[in-house]
Amino acid sequence: MQVDVALVHYPVYNKNQEIIGSAVTNLDIHDIARAGRTFGIGTYYIVTPYRDQQKLVGEIVSHWQDGYGARYNTDRKEAFASIKICDDLQSLYELAAVNGHKPLVVATSAREHAKSISFGAMRQKIHAGTHVLLLFGTAWGLTEQALAGVDHMLPPISGYGDYRHLSVRSAVSIVFDRLLGRREE
Amino acid sequence: MQVDVALVHYPVYNKNQEIIGSAVTNLDIHDIARAGRTFGIGTYYIVTPYRDQQKLVGEIVSHWQDGYGARYNTDRKEAFASIKICDDLQSLYELAAVNGHKPLVVATSAREHAKSISFGAMRQKIHAGTHVLLLFGTAWGLTEQALAGVDHMLPPISGYGDYRHLSVRSAVSIVFDRLLGRREE
Repeated sequence: MQVDVALVHYPVYNKNQEIIGSAVTNLDIHDIARAGRTFGIGTYYIVTPYRDQQKLVGEIVSHWQDGYGARYNTDRKEAFASIKICDDLQSLYELAAVNGHKPLVVATSAREHAKSISFGAMRQKIHAGTHVLLLFGTAWGLTEQALAGVDHMLPPISGYGDYRHLSVRSAVSIVFDRLLGRREE
Repeated sequence: MQVDVALVHYPVYNKNQEIIGSAVTNLDIHDIARAGRTFGIGTYYIVTPYRDQQKLVGEIVSHWQDGYGARYNTDRKEAFASIKICDDLQSLYELAAVNGHKPLVVATSAREHAKSISFGAMRQKIHAGTHVLLLFGTAWGLTEQALAGVDHMLPPISGYGDYRHLSVRSAVSIVFDRLLGRREE
């Protein structure tokens, strides 16, 4: 299995459907790194064009990789080893390519879209060895322009009602489990 | 379906296996309330014996229920309507009882335990109408004493390795999805 994940802070929508760059959230770094390590994710890309935000992410990662945090909590150190920072979607796709081959880019969305693929079909592709990059948007989600560049869309995650306002931390965890979790015998 | 959830801040272990009361984390309130609303959870109990922590939770909930937050984000208001604060496990079990009937108390643990039940079997019980209370510990998990009072334990969530250090936010989200998520056709 070869699966990477990217958390995208630009371009995303705000609640008024305007295109914005969102701020990095500390617990997004922690929770997704820990879930990624649990489910066998290769690289966790944090995408933001803002230099101050990149610096902040770098400082947090460094604290848990080399600083006091690394001695305090070795599990966290291990999880944080997978993190890379990059500027935008274009450089993400270049960085994620292996020997010039771009991964299959798969986004999730709280809304329904064309290019849909079921969780079961995506799970099969992953287990058959397809290199996959999972793309998650922060704030009110990836812009239409960003979604135009992806290969597939996973369906919205829902229970039995129509409330679909999971945090990105919850959504990432559930998608990892559905695609990569160990199934009961 | 009748499922409630409780996030327990005491009694839990710290990293040295000492029994402590942990501090409430703001994003635990948000993420679990939103996931709970998505998956049809009835009541979300936040268990802490500390008055200052109870006051803090009350203020956060009130901001999103009645204050500026309620006007800024009605989805969040809806999610926060399910939150109740209580002192300890004993008062939790009293509060969660319906007509004097205690719910089936089910905990999750990063470790293996007796009283295990599979996710599939628990899902069946829930869909058959059993009233279930899901118990999650913060910090390094519920103490043995707390676990002695539960009826069943769900197995640890894992990928293909043996790293099991999900955040409680991730673990709750995955358990909700496994027990209550809508399955693909």
